[in-house]
Amino acid sequence: MRDVSIIGIGQTPVGEHWDKSLRHLAYDALAAAMRDASVTKVDALYVGNMLSGEISGQAHLGALVADFAGLRGIEAVKVEAACASAAAAFRLGLMGVASGFQTVVAVVGVEKMTDDVGSKVTAGLASASDADYESIHGVTFPSLNALIMRRYMHEYQVTKEAFANFSVNAHANGANNPNAMLQRAISKETFMRGGAVADPITLFDASPMADGAAAVIICPTEMAAEFSAQSIRVAASALATDTLSVHDRKDPLWLQAAADSARLAYQQAGIGPAEVDFFELHDAFTIMSALSLEACGFAERGQGTRLAEEGQIALNGQIPICTQGGLKARGHPVGATGTYQIVEAVQQLRGQAGKNQVAEAVWGMTQNIGGSGATIVTHILTNDAE
Amino acid sequence: MRDVSIIGIGQTPVGEHWDKSLRHLAYDALAAAMRDASVTKVDALYVGNMLSGEISGQAHLGALVADFAGLRGIEAVKVEAACASAAAAFRLGLMGVASGFQTVVAVVGVEKMTDDVGSKVTAGLASASDADYESIHGVTFPSLNALIMRRYMHEYQVTKEAFANFSVNAHANGANNPNAMLQRAISKETFMRGGAVADPITLFDASPMADGAAAVIICPTEMAAEFSAQSIRVAASALATDTLSVHDRKDPLWLQAAADSARLAYQQAGIGPAEVDFFELHDAFTIMSALSLEACGFAERGQGTRLAEEGQIALNGQIPICTQGGLKARGHPVGATGTYQIVEAVQQLRGQAGKNQVAEAVWGMTQNIGGSGATIVTHILTNDAE
Repeated sequence: MRDVSIIGIGQTPVGEHWDKSLRHLAYDALAAAMRDASVTKVDALYVGNMLSGEISGQAHLGALVADFAGLRGIEAVKVEAACASAAAAFRLGLMGVASGFQTVVAVVGVEKMTDDVGSKVTAGLASASDADYESIHGVTFPSLNALIMRRYMHEYQVTKEAFANFSVNAHANGANNPNAMLQRAISKETFMRGGAVADPITLFDASPMADGAAAVIICPTEMAAEFSAQSIRVAASALATDTLSVHDRKDPLWLQAAADSARLAYQQAGIGPAEVDFFELHDAFTIMSALSLEACGFAERGQGTRLAEEGQIALNGQIPICTQGGLKARGHPVGATGTYQIVEAVQQLRGQAGKNQVAEAVWGMTQNIGGSGATIVTHILTNDAE
Repeated sequence: MRDVSIIGIGQTPVGEHWDKSLRHLAYDALAAAMRDASVTKVDALYVGNMLSGEISGQAHLGALVADFAGLRGIEAVKVEAACASAAAAFRLGLMGVASGFQTVVAVVGVEKMTDDVGSKVTAGLASASDADYESIHGVTFPSLNALIMRRYMHEYQVTKEAFANFSVNAHANGANNPNAMLQRAISKETFMRGGAVADPITLFDASPMADGAAAVIICPTEMAAEFSAQSIRVAASALATDTLSVHDRKDPLWLQAAADSARLAYQQAGIGPAEVDFFELHDAFTIMSALSLEACGFAERGQGTRLAEEGQIALNGQIPICTQGGLKARGHPVGATGTYQIVEAVQQLRGQAGKNQVAEAVWGMTQNIGGSGATIVTHILTNDAE
């Protein structure tokens, strides 16, 4: 198996793109990544997307995006794992290069959610949960996360206020990210005044729906220097699953698939949580930030919110998270979020994160979650040569 | 890169399964394949599916099927490439094993089309074409194929009758396949009396929508004997793409992605069309059979129908096709068809094809097509030890 490195990154701003279709968004990100990697062709394209069939009446994005991006004829497929689609696509691209089936590979995550004639997006998102046992009863993702958050507050005697800093931190970082959907800082008071979404979740606990695309170009590590002076090695990649239904889990407050994929990733990279310099986690809701930090070894159970309260998740803290705004402020174009996280981690490891730069970052971890934790994909990237 | 072999196969009957949901169909095929391979666990699951989100309100099939099949926690993703989804999933499973990321892998194609409240299936299938330039005008797959078939008849001065034997052959083979949806032979006269679907396509040119699932277990060739005395080596795997829109192609009568993927597959296997003992092609419509045979080197351009007329596609002919009934008679559960083809090829190469056995078959080719030729996946399998 060969080592794989990232040699190019690209992204569109996250927001409401009324003037661009799915294919245009994917093209913009892909073309930027190819320019960044100084490549004019690739051997294969992996597209991460969740909802194009439901919302845009367009399946078959592999061939569509390949053709529209000037890559007609190449191998191209779409990968879907709910909101973890893009990181899953990235992992399959890695397999393509590692196996020798392909040499230079493009991965793009793309989602268009706001051009939603007929309000299909809520039903579409609910399709990530169990259609026969969850969504048929009207359960949506905000309500599932609300159940989990309420249980957490009860079990660990944590107040709503304890979650504030997850949102405040994300917005503070988003304010300095020109590609973020919500480029403004918020105060703890603003967080507490947020309108109800699904009690106890209020406005500033929840990430916004958005349009966007983010792309990555990868190749064997041994060839990376031919393309880029700033290549970033993929030190670990792992994907694990859990039950789709929250009620099927032994403990709804434990993200088993996060723990499993993180354990595998730490083994592959030869590091532990103490060596991770920043963590792009999947803060679809603030409760998910707490649970991710706990499952991945950054906090004891029930102590995830304390990390936020103590400011340890800030850029200069013990474990900076959501360094470019996270899902909360950068925005959450669901099937694209996984590649946004990887692009942002590469920015950090190249020292190109601007005002949000984490000092001397060497190891970056990303974690993309599908559903309420049923698919979790963890990657560790590094600028360390070996 | 390590060689990969198939050590287990399983399938459900193809038909209208009112009593089984998506997850039950997938489980039935998967459990049969695991029993066949004598394995009780696998490292990863690749699910091929096209329409579960649109028709069943259920995305996220990787985690769902893994959990329901007793494989909770393993790596699992869904792959979509329109009607080529299952063969694309199989190819990604190959990459997983070849790369060393995984050792024993399951691939299942599954589709449930007939439990279609609200007639979403025609719109869902149309999402494989270009939403902005084809389906928005009301174009469906029968009508696209009708345009291509009419052009073929005009260009090569071929009559409707010339296509009859594709259907007659498929039905003759389907009559002996206990898993086929349409287990009855038809005559040329029956073919000619078929009601209009989209002129010149009539009933017996078109494959039926269906429910079904087919699964395959693979592992490194060097380990295959531990699991199966009848393992089948995957000698070649290739995926190529073309424009989604038929009107964007230089020549609508040439399946460029079939030619490209077949050329790569022949190279990998070290054989040519003359060595292929049978060919499980993608006869969604009879015209596709003619175009596949031509693009893959079995007939000159415009001569595909002649192969049928001369009986060369029969079980004892020069190039037997659709040996278990093909899409036409076995049925076409779109996102599962690719693994049905592979399962049927393995049956032939093991000598387990019953009354449909092709004598002394050593090399079998399968070809799964997405859209009207935008994604084409070609595999070559063999029982030859090296």
